[in-house]
Amino acid sequence: MPFPSGRAAGNMRAGERLMHIEPTTATDWLRSAAAAARAASSALGRMPATARDAALHAAAEALRRHAAAIVAANAQDIAAFDAAGGAPAFRDRLLLTPARVEAMAQGLEEVAALPDPLARTLADWTRPNGLRIRRIASPIGVIGMIYESRPNVGADAAGLCLKSGNAVILRGGSDSFHSARAIHAALTEGFREAGVPEAAVQIPPTTDRAYVAAMLAGSGLIDLIIPRGGKSLVTRVQAEARVPVLAHAEGLCHTYVHAAADPEMARRILANAKMRRTGVCGATETLLIDATIAPALLPTLIADLSLLGCDFRADECARKICAELPAATDADFSTEWLGPTLAVAVVDGVDAAVAHIRRHGSEHTEAIITEDEAAAEKFLCGIDSAVGLWNASTQFCDGGEFGFGAEIGIATGRIHARGPVGLEQLTSFRYLVTGSGQVRP
Amino acid sequence: MPFPSGRAAGNMRAGERLMHIEPTTATDWLRSAAAAARAASSALGRMPATARDAALHAAAEALRRHAAAIVAANAQDIAAFDAAGGAPAFRDRLLLTPARVEAMAQGLEEVAALPDPLARTLADWTRPNGLRIRRIASPIGVIGMIYESRPNVGADAAGLCLKSGNAVILRGGSDSFHSARAIHAALTEGFREAGVPEAAVQIPPTTDRAYVAAMLAGSGLIDLIIPRGGKSLVTRVQAEARVPVLAHAEGLCHTYVHAAADPEMARRILANAKMRRTGVCGATETLLIDATIAPALLPTLIADLSLLGCDFRADECARKICAELPAATDADFSTEWLGPTLAVAVVDGVDAAVAHIRRHGSEHTEAIITEDEAAAEKFLCGIDSAVGLWNASTQFCDGGEFGFGAEIGIATGRIHARGPVGLEQLTSFRYLVTGSGQVRP
Repeated sequence: MPFPSGRAAGNMRAGERLMHIEPTTATDWLRSAAAAARAASSALGRMPATARDAALHAAAEALRRHAAAIVAANAQDIAAFDAAGGAPAFRDRLLLTPARVEAMAQGLEEVAALPDPLARTLADWTRPNGLRIRRIASPIGVIGMIYESRPNVGADAAGLCLKSGNAVILRGGSDSFHSARAIHAALTEGFREAGVPEAAVQIPPTTDRAYVAAMLAGSGLIDLIIPRGGKSLVTRVQAEARVPVLAHAEGLCHTYVHAAADPEMARRILANAKMRRTGVCGATETLLIDATIAPALLPTLIADLSLLGCDFRADECARKICAELPAATDADFSTEWLGPTLAVAVVDGVDAAVAHIRRHGSEHTEAIITEDEAAAEKFLCGIDSAVGLWNASTQFCDGGEFGFGAEIGIATGRIHARGPVGLEQLTSFRYLVTGSGQVRP
Repeated sequence: MPFPSGRAAGNMRAGERLMHIEPTTATDWLRSAAAAARAASSALGRMPATARDAALHAAAEALRRHAAAIVAANAQDIAAFDAAGGAPAFRDRLLLTPARVEAMAQGLEEVAALPDPLARTLADWTRPNGLRIRRIASPIGVIGMIYESRPNVGADAAGLCLKSGNAVILRGGSDSFHSARAIHAALTEGFREAGVPEAAVQIPPTTDRAYVAAMLAGSGLIDLIIPRGGKSLVTRVQAEARVPVLAHAEGLCHTYVHAAADPEMARRILANAKMRRTGVCGATETLLIDATIAPALLPTLIADLSLLGCDFRADECARKICAELPAATDADFSTEWLGPTLAVAVVDGVDAAVAHIRRHGSEHTEAIITEDEAAAEKFLCGIDSAVGLWNASTQFCDGGEFGFGAEIGIATGRIHARGPVGLEQLTSFRYLVTGSGQVRP
């Protein structure tokens, strides 16, 4: 038996604290958990980076040490999932294997190897009166992570939060509860060995939805909620949360092939943007193509994608060129397919492309393919999406591809951070002001 | 008659649009106003800085041109306020004079003279695959400003929002409605002359509280709410808003006189931090003083402040030194006096000072007075307030004093911005990625 006790191993300590304070509701639990989390974040923020990194290494080792127990806990989840007749796609996300546990451990080590996001002076200036003002990075504090039944998301989030000095309360999907508990037990064991407060990573004691409700209502207790999952989960969190939320509900991304596009580049990029992986949020969902280039290029683009298994919904202009394409409805242009389907519209230049995107898009990621720099600039200034690309695939919208090392999600809101959310975006800042006796006139 | 028509001049255009779409509720109005605001922000963000600055100058001129009408509208508000028997302090905040209108106009011109916050590349790097990634400043979008019956706050906020490419919906206190409408009419007249969309600044058509409720519920319509006013206004907004809020509810600031303080510097700073202006959020509310220096220094500090009209609430240790001081309750240390009262506690070193602040403070601004750099660093790392000062007055927590030129408020949350909120903090960012045909492997 790898854990100190049986059933509640993963929440041992939280459970003990709960019994001690006799909580009767999820709100009581959250209040206690958040207070411990805040103290943990405060301690983490004052630790040298080496101590946080050592904790990540210790947690990785603990994951490896307890890999068999984690896989066994996961088997419980999988058995229940199968008994309930769950869908294959969700089963694969839920499933843990020794190799996947090893990947989680390596993920923690990779985060440990990244630069310390707290070791940043964001600005440093001296006022005419001699006051020196420094804006320094600091942890956000207590983060609530709400995600689907993908156990690895919890481990990844815990690593990123710890590295950035934040405490995190992880609430994964109910189907993954045993897995989450086993992972949590391993992580906290590693933290304990490394002298980091276990309250840096906590999970609710049961799968009761009341804990989610408490987290969403946890103004003053939780500083930031990060939901990660499908549109329905994210929009529900956004609608109910009384706490700031960093997220994207959907990625309705466009690739715009401009009149001055290099045709071969357009073929290569579009095939990648649409078909590399169709289920990711950075996948292109709509092709916009200029009317002047469409007669020559659209049939080739359609043929390329058809060979890769893509199907289409095309507007009238596109169907005049490729008559075999099914007709698109207006709603098709507002649909995030997350599969091998592409909406196609012919547009008259950059302004029309921008107008289409502003009307139908989700302010996530859009690309223009063109050899005309002025057109590219007009397009990139015209859209107001988190990420705009010129002559590159929309699937580059990713923290790893941006060089962040890892990401906790993608944000399409306009507050705090947009685009891939990496370690830097998991920090806040504060000011240190150094004087020599200055008083304000 | 300075405005194109009588009663509803300030809302002329909004009123016409309202009649056109036949809204029946505040939510309908907000939906329409926010759509126009978003289009205005989009246009502002694409304008050169010179165009936004020209609009600020035109608005300043319009304020001057319509100063008599603004003062006359204000007289209506003042008459109603007096008839209702309003308090003198609030009356002064509500009152407009020609000099105060001129000050508003100058405020807009000062904002115009500040550097363009949108002309900033926040990061610029190239990936091994040749993708160049730039993080550029961008407007937040639509800001909702909710403030008390202080008409100048609306003009100041409008200037800062316009400069930073944001549209703003201004909802000032009901007592200032006629003033707000007259100011709004002048501002939009200036914008119109300068070719800036009038929808960049809007006000609800009546004082109905339903418009506030609609703004607070305006998720997806308003990107950020900035409440500015007393604690009750701010906490109400924070509790009710379904939109991100940037604010501080209170400034319970501490000055900590460390054992190694220069006594003369401590006297000078404390007198300023407490008594320069007692009603501002950066005023010191509690004095913490080390036990080793208190017997020698506390009586002098108390005498200094007494001469300035301050009274005190002191803990037991302080009363052993200055027996004449009234005893403090625990609640006194959690009270933002906003007046000439100071809570006084004797502490045993930096850790005790930090613990006191973490227990009672509001994470706004704290100062340490010491000649010991290690103690200062320990203190500044130990607290988690937006602003920490070493050997300077807490009253320096101010956008102007920070060199921001102007501020729209102070934030004590941990998301997006902390401390004084100036033009830079009124921006978001997005990514521009330049490639040469890269596809993701």
